[in-house]
Amino acid sequence: MTKVTAQMSVSLDGFYAGPRHDGEGDWMASAEAAAFFRVTRWAIDAAAWRERQGFAGGESDVNSDIIGEMFESAGAYVMGRRMAEGGEVPWGDEPPFRAPVFVVTHRPRPTLQRLGGTSFTFVTDGIASAIDQARAAANGKNVAVAGGGELVRQVLQAGLLDELELHVAPVVVGTGLRLLDILDLPAKEAIELVPTRVVHTPSVTHIRYSVGGRAPLVLDDRGRGGGPAQVDRA
Amino acid sequence: MTKVTAQMSVSLDGFYAGPRHDGEGDWMASAEAAAFFRVTRWAIDAAAWRERQGFAGGESDVNSDIIGEMFESAGAYVMGRRMAEGGEVPWGDEPPFRAPVFVVTHRPRPTLQRLGGTSFTFVTDGIASAIDQARAAANGKNVAVAGGGELVRQVLQAGLLDELELHVAPVVVGTGLRLLDILDLPAKEAIELVPTRVVHTPSVTHIRYSVGGRAPLVLDDRGRGGGPAQVDRA
Repeated sequence: MTKVTAQMSVSLDGFYAGPRHDGEGDWMASAEAAAFFRVTRWAIDAAAWRERQGFAGGESDVNSDIIGEMFESAGAYVMGRRMAEGGEVPWGDEPPFRAPVFVVTHRPRPTLQRLGGTSFTFVTDGIASAIDQARAAANGKNVAVAGGGELVRQVLQAGLLDELELHVAPVVVGTGLRLLDILDLPAKEAIELVPTRVVHTPSVTHIRYSVGGRAPLVLDDRGRGGGPAQVDRA
Repeated sequence: MTKVTAQMSVSLDGFYAGPRHDGEGDWMASAEAAAFFRVTRWAIDAAAWRERQGFAGGESDVNSDIIGEMFESAGAYVMGRRMAEGGEVPWGDEPPFRAPVFVVTHRPRPTLQRLGGTSFTFVTDGIASAIDQARAAANGKNVAVAGGGELVRQVLQAGLLDELELHVAPVVVGTGLRLLDILDLPAKEAIELVPTRVVHTPSVTHIRYSVGGRAPLVLDDRGRGGGPAQVDRA
């Protein structure tokens, strides 16, 4: 069954990149890029990522397996405009997706056909529509929200995400673009998730969550009494 | 060898409590408390926590083992004033620590002796001094920074923390008091850590880190070339 999934590399303090580059000078030299490359370093080392980029070498380890699994399970992608435009040149003629990509944008553009099964379709009527189109194209595989972080956050916020995998890099970067700045939650309301898998490596901790939904934060007074505890099980 | 440790329950978006209670009305009914009790729910269910509080029942599971281990490894505690004052009444005559507690405060007070081995010594000359005094009292066991979150952050920020264990509750609360708001990191500088243990349960993910130190965020271009990757191993 098709799930809508997202995965993102973040620092321990929740940032997927440094402070937004102001457009002056080289992005590669920016603080935004410095934190982005730190939190994604584990992936850049991985053979499965490098193979998709056309690079040689890399480590065939559990991190690589996780990337391979992500690519294999995705039948279609949804992507933000900034990520799609940023990748257009570096990804070249044969982008790493090998599947249809639906780009959420306000600017209509003709579909781009690339080699290896990748296409970019520009969707101007919203995130839900892009997800619907991706679902139809996914052939029963998952719809992967590829990024950027802002789009992942919007999909989560809109209640459209079934599964979120965070790759937590062991670093505190202090400032930048935070994935989980969910600003529309009323007081005493939360988004509940269930952790379904944790994979631990020295360079990154992968935690996969099934997304529940919004729920009130109810004061839990089980610690106040003397009776037997109840445990919430997943 | 004595390590300076801290452990904290946080939401997936990094909060250890909801927005600071303004002092009007009952704290237990506040949004601060609602998020605090949600992220610490796993501990309230645990037999080892309940036993220290004088409560019956609870689950004797891996979560309980982790709390038991924390109490056992601590030879002395360092605590913020707000936490110490907030706990003074509910902890009663026999607080859960069973070891000397050093409270960082600006307000001198005579040491409080409690039953079961707990004492509260009020330290007015700063965090480093409180840690030094706790180290001397710890008898070779660890110095545990018990909280609150603000003190844990200050100890980390000051480079005084050797080990940090986060108990990550699977919930996004959106707003409140964030543990890792490290605001004094310059651009392109980070605090590096090494994950040393991950314990996964359905209600919480425990990740223990050894704290490295401040390091520059160097642009890592290993993904750009075709050569063999190097992997940073812990």
